[in-house]
Amino acid sequence: MTLAFTHDTLAQRIRFGSGEAAASLSAEVAEQGWTRAMVIAAPAESELAGAVTDGLPVAHVHDDVVMHVPVAVAERARRAAAEHRADVLISIGGGSTTGLAKAVALTTGLPIVAVPTTYAGSEATNVWGLTEESTKTTGVDAKVLPRTVVYDASLMLSLPVDLSVASGLNALAHCVDSMWSPRTDPIDQALAAEGIRALDAGLPRIVADPSDLKGREQALYGAYLAAVAFASAGSGLHHKICHVLGGRYDLPHAPTHAVVLPHVLALNGPAAPEADDRIARAFGSVDGLTGLQDLRRRLDAPRALRDYGFEESQVPDAARAVLPAVPPDNPATVTPDVLEDLLHRAWEGAEPR
Amino acid sequence: MTLAFTHDTLAQRIRFGSGEAAASLSAEVAEQGWTRAMVIAAPAESELAGAVTDGLPVAHVHDDVVMHVPVAVAERARRAAAEHRADVLISIGGGSTTGLAKAVALTTGLPIVAVPTTYAGSEATNVWGLTEESTKTTGVDAKVLPRTVVYDASLMLSLPVDLSVASGLNALAHCVDSMWSPRTDPIDQALAAEGIRALDAGLPRIVADPSDLKGREQALYGAYLAAVAFASAGSGLHHKICHVLGGRYDLPHAPTHAVVLPHVLALNGPAAPEADDRIARAFGSVDGLTGLQDLRRRLDAPRALRDYGFEESQVPDAARAVLPAVPPDNPATVTPDVLEDLLHRAWEGAEPR
Repeated sequence: MTLAFTHDTLAQRIRFGSGEAAASLSAEVAEQGWTRAMVIAAPAESELAGAVTDGLPVAHVHDDVVMHVPVAVAERARRAAAEHRADVLISIGGGSTTGLAKAVALTTGLPIVAVPTTYAGSEATNVWGLTEESTKTTGVDAKVLPRTVVYDASLMLSLPVDLSVASGLNALAHCVDSMWSPRTDPIDQALAAEGIRALDAGLPRIVADPSDLKGREQALYGAYLAAVAFASAGSGLHHKICHVLGGRYDLPHAPTHAVVLPHVLALNGPAAPEADDRIARAFGSVDGLTGLQDLRRRLDAPRALRDYGFEESQVPDAARAVLPAVPPDNPATVTPDVLEDLLHRAWEGAEPR
Repeated sequence: MTLAFTHDTLAQRIRFGSGEAAASLSAEVAEQGWTRAMVIAAPAESELAGAVTDGLPVAHVHDDVVMHVPVAVAERARRAAAEHRADVLISIGGGSTTGLAKAVALTTGLPIVAVPTTYAGSEATNVWGLTEESTKTTGVDAKVLPRTVVYDASLMLSLPVDLSVASGLNALAHCVDSMWSPRTDPIDQALAAEGIRALDAGLPRIVADPSDLKGREQALYGAYLAAVAFASAGSGLHHKICHVLGGRYDLPHAPTHAVVLPHVLALNGPAAPEADDRIARAFGSVDGLTGLQDLRRRLDAPRALRDYGFEESQVPDAARAVLPAVPPDNPATVTPDVLEDLLHRAWEGAEPR
């Protein structure tokens, strides 16, 4: 196939090391000469935040973190940054904490050093989001991309196994969908394949032993790559389907992704042989679907949407709702019948085809 | 293995498209609002440079390009940039042309848009080099990394097949050596693996048909990735050996790399099973060496250093000279005997082991 693409690689330093969060933060602050850090961490992470920022020049600790970053919460954090004359934002936590740091960076231009404690991936993207009266606004701005991300897998040891698997499968869905999403290019695909390889190596180890640090490292590394690839490539068919299912029938995010993914791969894989080959090589399997299904078996992943509140009678309505959102350049042709069949199988927990 | 690394991803836009150089340049200039471009292109590329910059706001065309960027040449180019009040440097050519643009950017901070016409790879790195009285000085500076690279494989159609293969195998050596070089990390390794995949896809097509644009695209894309991975990971054993052989016995660059690579892979592959697995998956072969040798056969690649002026009697001297340069963390243990055996096989054209 002819190679034609535009790819923007974003500048970011990754410091990856288990048990190294404090040392990595200290090295970054020393190198950049920052003297007034604003530490952003929710109350649940306050002890952890204290431990990893011990000895740093902290001007303010901000624990007023709320899910989805309401505008009022962002405004308070921005005022705090100004009052305390912060010269760097150190965010320690999951997606909402990183998101709040991004909201401050968006208007102040302050650099962010992010220390993620989940596989959310927001730390690796230049996407920000704010909510006001339950309406979410998102945007893309170079200013909100954390300058440095400190990945310390030992911080993930307390993440329960089921949450780790759900979050890991969500990251895997980002990787797989990146193979054919609208803005994808071979660089995105190569990073996504590396993410699949790492998640496939890490997640079964976490299930076998939640304290397996090497498994945690691979999963965290894979989640980082998933975010990089997905932010660049955009949403493909899989995410369009899950978005409709989640919004319209209030299905839970993670199991919905886990159930739907093999059905989308079964549909698109044969129509996108190069993408499928990348997925297969990443899994070390004969084809993409075989690799994914092997992994899902080892993780005892969710199989049927009917276990999560989706009704058989809703299948036709769901198919109609998904249809207009199907990306025009999706590898496989997607007709109403194709969608109905796919959703019925996902509802039932049938083998994908 | 435990995952611990620091990786700096450099910000750069890649515009990849065959026959699109003029359109890509025009889009970049319009987007950035540049109004006084200084075009740097050697006389050999002057016609091409005129064609791809037609219609752009060109303030000056600079064709005073000399290999290895002598300081005096750099000074003249810097003066020209100032005199013509250039606000962007557009370099069109091979490594020396990109290198001259970098020398200007180093002192002026001007942004570079690079249009490479070879597989040199300099356009994807933040490394600059200058020579003065036959001494080369190199350095690393964020300012010299081209902001945008415009890759147009149709500009490579006139590159002779033997040069394309030699240059492509050199890029392949960058990818393979990046797997175990001192600063390597999994991101470098993933990009290097993608480079191997692309070069393996592209180079045989160029040999079969020099006008095969899809082969040219894959090779160009692979050479870009090789540069990215190698600049981040640094020189490994392979490059240390080739550097000594080239410098001490004046052996030709490209064939030396082509001959030595399988011997280094045969040595390091078994000692670095994860790296070898990445190489094997990239080639789609049972192990790294099998994939490399298959490709070499299809390219009719150079096999023996004795065909290029290396003498059997020089083997012990070469082994002694290489020994101190062996990276301390090379996967396989490298003794004087191991080096002698490797170099003797490379001299003779024996099968690697």
